[in-house]
Amino acid sequence: MGQAIAGRILAAGFELAVHNRTPERAVELVAAGARGASAIADACSGCDVIATMLADDAALEEVALSADGLLDTMAPGAIHLAMGTHGVAAIADLAAAHAAAGQTLVAAPVLGRPDAAAAGQLAIVAGGPRAAVRVCEPLFAVIGRRVFDAGERPEAAAAVKLANGFVLACAIEAMSEAFSLARRFGVAPEVLHGVLTGGLFAAPAYETYGRIIVDERFDEAGFTTRLGLKDVGLMLDAGREAAVPLPSANVVRDRLLGAIAHGDGERDWSVIAREQARAAGLE
Amino acid sequence: MGQAIAGRILAAGFELAVHNRTPERAVELVAAGARGASAIADACSGCDVIATMLADDAALEEVALSADGLLDTMAPGAIHLAMGTHGVAAIADLAAAHAAAGQTLVAAPVLGRPDAAAAGQLAIVAGGPRAAVRVCEPLFAVIGRRVFDAGERPEAAAAVKLANGFVLACAIEAMSEAFSLARRFGVAPEVLHGVLTGGLFAAPAYETYGRIIVDERFDEAGFTTRLGLKDVGLMLDAGREAAVPLPSANVVRDRLLGAIAHGDGERDWSVIAREQARAAGLE
Amino acid sequence: MGQAIAGRILAAGFELAVHNRTPERAVELVAAGARGASAIADACSGCDVIATMLADDAALEEVALSADGLLDTMAPGAIHLAMGTHGVAAIADLAAAHAAAGQTLVAAPVLGRPDAAAAGQLAIVAGGPRAAVRVCEPLFAVIGRRVFDAGERPEAAAAVKLANGFVLACAIEAMSEAFSLARRFGVAPEVLHGVLTGGLFAAPAYETYGRIIVDERFDEAGFTTRLGLKDVGLMLDAGREAAVPLPSANVVRDRLLGAIAHGDGERDWSVIAREQARAAGLE
Amino acid sequence: MGQAIAGRILAAGFELAVHNRTPERAVELVAAGARGASAIADACSGCDVIATMLADDAALEEVALSADGLLDTMAPGAIHLAMGTHGVAAIADLAAAHAAAGQTLVAAPVLGRPDAAAAGQLAIVAGGPRAAVRVCEPLFAVIGRRVFDAGERPEAAAAVKLANGFVLACAIEAMSEAFSLARRFGVAPEVLHGVLTGGLFAAPAYETYGRIIVDERFDEAGFTTRLGLKDVGLMLDAGREAAVPLPSANVVRDRLLGAIAHGDGERDWSVIAREQARAAGLE
Repeated sequence: MGQAIAGRILAAGFELAVHNRTPERAVELVAAGARGASAIADACSGCDVIATMLADDAALEEVALSADGLLDTMAPGAIHLAMGTHGVAAIADLAAAHAAAGQTLVAAPVLGRPDAAAAGQLAIVAGGPRAAVRVCEPLFAVIGRRVFDAGERPEAAAAVKLANGFVLACAIEAMSEAFSLARRFGVAPEVLHGVLTGGLFAAPAYETYGRIIVDERFDEAGFTTRLGLKDVGLMLDAGREAAVPLPSANVVRDRLLGAIAHGDGERDWSVIAREQARAAGLE
Repeated sequence: MGQAIAGRILAAGFELAVHNRTPERAVELVAAGARGASAIADACSGCDVIATMLADDAALEEVALSADGLLDTMAPGAIHLAMGTHGVAAIADLAAAHAAAGQTLVAAPVLGRPDAAAAGQLAIVAGGPRAAVRVCEPLFAVIGRRVFDAGERPEAAAAVKLANGFVLACAIEAMSEAFSLARRFGVAPEVLHGVLTGGLFAAPAYETYGRIIVDERFDEAGFTTRLGLKDVGLMLDAGREAAVPLPSANVVRDRLLGAIAHGDGERDWSVIAREQARAAGLE
Repeated sequence: MGQAIAGRILAAGFELAVHNRTPERAVELVAAGARGASAIADACSGCDVIATMLADDAALEEVALSADGLLDTMAPGAIHLAMGTHGVAAIADLAAAHAAAGQTLVAAPVLGRPDAAAAGQLAIVAGGPRAAVRVCEPLFAVIGRRVFDAGERPEAAAAVKLANGFVLACAIEAMSEAFSLARRFGVAPEVLHGVLTGGLFAAPAYETYGRIIVDERFDEAGFTTRLGLKDVGLMLDAGREAAVPLPSANVVRDRLLGAIAHGDGERDWSVIAREQARAAGLE
Repeated sequence: MGQAIAGRILAAGFELAVHNRTPERAVELVAAGARGASAIADACSGCDVIATMLADDAALEEVALSADGLLDTMAPGAIHLAMGTHGVAAIADLAAAHAAAGQTLVAAPVLGRPDAAAAGQLAIVAGGPRAAVRVCEPLFAVIGRRVFDAGERPEAAAAVKLANGFVLACAIEAMSEAFSLARRFGVAPEVLHGVLTGGLFAAPAYETYGRIIVDERFDEAGFTTRLGLKDVGLMLDAGREAAVPLPSANVVRDRLLGAIAHGDGERDWSVIAREQARAAGLE
């Protein structure tokens, strides 16, 4: 995802330095004209905006807060544009740390897959101080088809991104419950899938994930059970921070945990359907 | 809904007798050429297929099982085409009763609103013995755009219809939880609604109900909280019959109950969002 | 249970007529001096108080409402003392029916097992019009060690009885979850059982049921999973009537359903523990 | 709690050094003969067993892992006896860190209140390498009435302690749901409390907490909602580590969150009952 975004930025004529903990991953971008940066400090040097696309909060904290990390090496006034999916506490804490260092954090998690990124078709949820968000807008214009404004707080953008994934998880869970009931009455999941996607649920969430469930193609993980549990966990953490009970998130969490307990942790997270079937004595 | 369907059947040239417990409701159809039947027995007389569109299981049982009801007055070999939303036990029991009387029950609940019915654009989920379903197909052709085959058991069609409504309820609940979290982080529901429907959830379930929630138009009830509770209750009953835990249905049921406890029983069932907001201290 | 209670009443010198749908079951009581009644009408004849101890609402409704049942044959002013575990709606409806017939319903479900009944050690929860409850008090005195006053409404007594069983179900579920977690960390259920019952939970609910779970003696059913599901279902129905969400009842219901789905319907309902272990991949 | 335990140890004739981040809190013990240690290093010097009683994982990690903390200053072969309530991950990680330093961690969380500690009546759950646990046994003998053996893994002792608190939380939640239902049927909580504690639930969990709920004495917090949320959170974290779904913990968590959302975060955690009543429209 990071490479696809960087490729768009470079192709649009921006001056770009790239740093990857696995240097080979930057080779292609350097060949295309990016400046290769062997260290974070090098990547930050002379840059107005430093974008990160990291796998989790731990990676973000390491890159930002460790010695010679972003906080230490970004210039005063520079903007850290965090594009990964992160927890609200991690983003809020980091925003405070950057602010204390005279820098600014803008959170701009993206929705869409790497191929959408390469095509400049991502949706972007941006949160942060207005002036800093405005500085980032030319970048958003080349990587996304649409920008959603989450307001002045970077953690709000994180919350919106988590909420989107959570709504998807709930849709998968709901379909899974519905499929297991239908099976008990002798109805093929295929038929119910047709009913759903032929009507109120004619949308990718149900078409794509419903199809995986109907075909039981859980082994080709687009997004694993463990990653799903991580993100639902971040959603629940956000609920705790904000004192918002999220009973549907509890349901999903328990199915994901059960899937892991039954050995499906590295399968596609729509394996929730199999776990629900297990709970109904169908496996 | 019943009138819209009857209108389609009549307009297509079928011979039609109509009976309504509130006789004025049949006036228009009679004016258009239907035979008015003052009693159920009269409506059944000489008919191959007797269609019902009733509000709940109690009404269905009364019409079918009371003295001079369908069972007593349908000819041997006749088909009862039950098009309402009913519980699986009610349908299974009625199917057995009809079979014992030499009659056949076909369950064919419909998806769509009255205007879709009037336009012949309903989706129909049909369950029942093959030969009987085949007899009904010419009727399905004039009232629906698509027929889904739930197999030989009428109660399977009931289960599919309930499952569709249940998946909708879960989507409303998931959105409600997401909106309440977003609000706590200062994000307007409008923005999150745009994120959802601009991406994975570009479907009527999220567009229509999300819009109601964003605008808080709960007073114009398309489908009330109490009716929602009834249908989710039928889904949970189906789960009990089939030994299928439905944890998401529990979540929805509790929100609907809470909404009723707080006086929102006659509002649109998407008032779930307000109940979720209450649980989060937002009202 | 009914026989044990009847035995106490007879031994205390009350004039007693007995009727059982299975006549042999009344033989012993008749031998001890009770008048054998071959029909309900016969049992009601000349009696001030007619006590029932029936397995479920369906049996209660049949005995009370069918032709020549209690309503038809009880004298005006007579009291129906319903001692079984019943749903609140069944009791409320029956109370209204009796009242319309000039009779009175007192609900007095009991807590304790048949041996406690035989020893006059039951706890009784009594609900109904004050005057009628007072008439029953001499009976309560010989069968119970304590009477709890649920007030003027018979269905309130039903609710209290259901609530007591529900709190037990929750204790079983909580222990089951705790045991499954402890097992994953290598702690024997025996040890955790000792911790619980050696401290805050030194009570029969935890001692008796915890012991069954520790020893996995689910085959000797004191109370089956199916009966547990029935009673939790009545509790949830009571919650629906009263618009009270009962999230813990949902959790228990799902475990009971899962147990039935896995073939444990006729085992002791503490087999919830095995179902919880299954959900955690421990079976 | 720490002072009460230390007092027992000192009174039994053990040589004791005490360190408290708030020095005044150690004054009494020093007056009674303990050696006052101004720094952690000083407290560890020459000691075979270093006991900690800390409020949470963050405090434990700071005391153990910061520069000049336990890891840096305990002698090789020394034992860290962690007596607070901690998460399983924190304990497991710390055990590994101590082991790497040639030291040993024994987790021995306690059950009971400070007055039980002062009377030597605590229950102790001990987990850790056998030899190290044996070294601690003379200490256990003076502070507790009973020791439960959680096995070789310190985190197992943490899990048992969390499980005990979790079972209590579930009992509070179950009572709360039952009370709210009873209230809707006009039954005073007092009556239901009598039924419960007069029968299957004659134990402190129901007597003490049920009494608080009946009297609505939530303002005198023995254990606050926020602390309850912390501990239930640790239980859920333990479930995640072990892949054990804990649906009852979810229910409790949501009530605690709701209580916080409604301003009851610093009240006694049995204020769950008020939150449940709110959900039922009773407040």
